[in-house]
Amino acid sequence: MRDVAIIGVYQTKFGELWDTSFRDLITEAGIRAIVDAGIEGQDLEAMFIGNMSAGLFVEQEHIASLIADQVGLNPVPCTRVEAACASGGLALRNGIMAVASGFNDIVVSAGVEKMTDVVDPTPVISTAADQEWEVQQGANFPSLYAMMARRHMHEYGTTREQLAIFSVVNHKNGALNPLAQFPMEITVDQVLNSSMVADPLRLLDCSPVTDGAAAVVLCPAEDAHKYSDTPIYVKGSGQASGTIALHERRDITTIDSTVHAAKRAYKMAGLQPKDIDLAEVHDCFSINGILAIEDLGFVEKGEGGPAVEDGLTERDGQIPINTSGGLKSRGHPLGATGIAQAAEIVWQLRGEAGKRQVEGAEIGMTHNIGGTGGTAAVHIFSN
Amino acid sequence: MRDVAIIGVYQTKFGELWDTSFRDLITEAGIRAIVDAGIEGQDLEAMFIGNMSAGLFVEQEHIASLIADQVGLNPVPCTRVEAACASGGLALRNGIMAVASGFNDIVVSAGVEKMTDVVDPTPVISTAADQEWEVQQGANFPSLYAMMARRHMHEYGTTREQLAIFSVVNHKNGALNPLAQFPMEITVDQVLNSSMVADPLRLLDCSPVTDGAAAVVLCPAEDAHKYSDTPIYVKGSGQASGTIALHERRDITTIDSTVHAAKRAYKMAGLQPKDIDLAEVHDCFSINGILAIEDLGFVEKGEGGPAVEDGLTERDGQIPINTSGGLKSRGHPLGATGIAQAAEIVWQLRGEAGKRQVEGAEIGMTHNIGGTGGTAAVHIFSN
Repeated sequence: MRDVAIIGVYQTKFGELWDTSFRDLITEAGIRAIVDAGIEGQDLEAMFIGNMSAGLFVEQEHIASLIADQVGLNPVPCTRVEAACASGGLALRNGIMAVASGFNDIVVSAGVEKMTDVVDPTPVISTAADQEWEVQQGANFPSLYAMMARRHMHEYGTTREQLAIFSVVNHKNGALNPLAQFPMEITVDQVLNSSMVADPLRLLDCSPVTDGAAAVVLCPAEDAHKYSDTPIYVKGSGQASGTIALHERRDITTIDSTVHAAKRAYKMAGLQPKDIDLAEVHDCFSINGILAIEDLGFVEKGEGGPAVEDGLTERDGQIPINTSGGLKSRGHPLGATGIAQAAEIVWQLRGEAGKRQVEGAEIGMTHNIGGTGGTAAVHIFSN
Repeated sequence: MRDVAIIGVYQTKFGELWDTSFRDLITEAGIRAIVDAGIEGQDLEAMFIGNMSAGLFVEQEHIASLIADQVGLNPVPCTRVEAACASGGLALRNGIMAVASGFNDIVVSAGVEKMTDVVDPTPVISTAADQEWEVQQGANFPSLYAMMARRHMHEYGTTREQLAIFSVVNHKNGALNPLAQFPMEITVDQVLNSSMVADPLRLLDCSPVTDGAAAVVLCPAEDAHKYSDTPIYVKGSGQASGTIALHERRDITTIDSTVHAAKRAYKMAGLQPKDIDLAEVHDCFSINGILAIEDLGFVEKGEGGPAVEDGLTERDGQIPINTSGGLKSRGHPLGATGIAQAAEIVWQLRGEAGKRQVEGAEIGMTHNIGGTGGTAAVHIFSN
C-alpha cells in the first residue's frame, strides 16, 4: 500500500448562500483546490464526491457525472459516496484508497451540500435516521441526540452548562474563521436562553443548515514534494458502522462506530490519543462534541463535560477541539463537513490557520459521523 | 497493487416484488453471496453498496449503515456509492480498490434498488439526467435515447428491425434465466407493434422498472483458492465520465465514457476486444445495446445494427451479448444492475450458467452506464 499526502485544500464560504447554486459551490471548491495544489486539471486521475442527498435537496442524482462535466474534467472518473453526514469523510477515505492502491496518482476528494433550496430541510436530514423504526414514529435528529444528552447527564452528571460551554468554545474559534457561517462569539447565557429545540438541547446547541463545499487534492506521499512545500501526510484512516437506529445500541452514551473507527485509525498510524495535537470532531449537537472527545480517547468516558468546563478543549488547552468553529459555528453542509474538517487540519499543520493557529501542531485528527453514529470516519494527519 | 478475485456471487429474483422490502432484498443478496463464498460474516472487512436513489424511492439515505445493521455486520465499514444506473459497477470497482490497496482482504460489493414503492418512478429515474438542461425542459430517458436512436439510424442506416432484434435476442437468453423479470421469448413483430414510448423506441425496446439486489464477494487473488474451487479473476477495471447532458456531446451516436472506460479496462487487462468471449452490456434501451457493442470495440462504429441482425451477438454467435437476458429481460433495478452483470459473467466463467451456458467461455466483460453515459464502468474477468 502506498502512503498518501494532501497537496491542496479549499473550502468555500459556508452559509445560507442564496445566490450560489449546487454547481457553483462544487466548481469553486474543486477548481480552487487544484490551484492550491499547483497542478493542472489534466493531472487529475479521479474524483470522489461526498454528498448526502442532492436527490432530495436539489432533485439531482448522478452528481458525480454532473460535477466532472461542470468542472470540465471529462473523462476523469468521478464517484459519489454517501453516508449521510459522514459522506465527506468517506469521500476522503475512498480517495486515499484510490491512491494507496495505485489505481490513481492524483485524486480530488470533495464534499458538497446545498441545503437551502428546500422549504423544510428536516425531512431530508431525517432520511439519515432509520425511517421505519425512528422517523415514522416521530423521531428526528434533535430528539434523538436529546435522548443521548439526557442519558449522558443521568449517567455521568454532565451539566446543561457544560453542553453550553462546548458551543461557546466552538464560537470563540469560529469567530476567527472568515469561512464560518456564524463567525461570532456567544455566551453560556445566550445558549441557555436560546429557544428550546428538544429538551435539553436548545437552538445554540444545534449545528445550522448550511450550503457549502470543500475539496482536498491527494497524491502518493513519495511525489508530494514535487507539488507542495508543505505536504500533509495521511497517517491513519478508520471507518466503522454502528446501528442506524438508536434503540438498538448497547449504550446510547457511547458511539461505538466512533470507537471502532478511531481504533483502526490509531492502529494504522501507530499512534495513541495522547499523540494527537488537535482534532476536528463532529459536533452536530453539543452533546456529540462531548461524546466524541470521550469516544476518541482524549478523556475517560463520562469526563467530557468536566474536560470542556476546565478548558481542555480550548485553543490553548491540552487538546484543542474544533479550531475551525466546528459544525456549530463553521456550519454543517452535510456532505462537505468531513472534507472541511480535513481542510482545517491541513491549514493548522501547514501553519496557515491565521489567528486561530495552534502553535507547533504536528498531528491532527478528523472525526466525521453519519446520523446518530451509523457511520464514523476518523483520519489522522501529520506534517 | 494486489490482484483481486471473486469467490462468491448471488442475485435475487428480479421483478415487481411487492412482498419484498428494500431491507429484505439487500439482506438476501448479501447473506447468500457470503454463503456462496463459503465464508463467515466475521471474515468480512468492508462492504460497498451501489444504489441510485433510495432517498427518492424509499425515503431512506444512509443505506450503507442500514444494511450493515440489517445483515448483522456492525462495525464492518459499509459505503454507498452512487452513479445513477452505473452505481453497481462503481460499487464493484470500489470494492476492487479496497482489496487491491490492501485496506481490506474480504469485501462484498453489492447493489440494490427498490423501484416499485413509488407511484411514478419516472421523475426519480430522471434525476440521473441533467435536471436544469434536460429534465426541466421536458426530456426524460426514453426521449433522450430516442434521439440517439434516430441519429444512429440517420448516420448509419440502422433499421427499426435491427433495434427490435436486439430485444428479441435478449429475451431468447432471458427465457432461460429463472432470475429474470420477464423470462419469456418475444418476436420482432411484437416489438414493432408494442406501444410507442418515444419515437422510434417502443415498449419492448425499453428495460422495465424492477426491484432486485445482487452481491459479489472479493478477496486477494492469492488467497482465492482457500475459499473457492472456481475463483474468477478481475483482470481489468475502467471507469470514465462523460457529459451528463446529451446536447453537449461531440456525437450522440457514440458514448465516449464507454469508449474511455473500455480502453482503460483493456489496458489494465492487457487484452483486446477480440479476446472477449462474452459480455453483459447496458441495454437500458435497445439502441444502447447497439451503441455498446460498437463502443466496446466488438464491431466497427455503425456496424452494430447489421451485427445484431446477422446473429453475431446470439449465444452461439461470435460475441455472445447479454446471456442473462440483459436489462431488457432480466430487469433493471438501477443500482443492482452492474453487480448482476458481474454475477452472470461469474456463472458463465464457472460453467454454472445452466441452459444459457456459453461453452468454453474464459474471458467475460461487464459494461454498466449511468444516465445517457455520464458515467461508464467496464470490467473484464477471467477464469
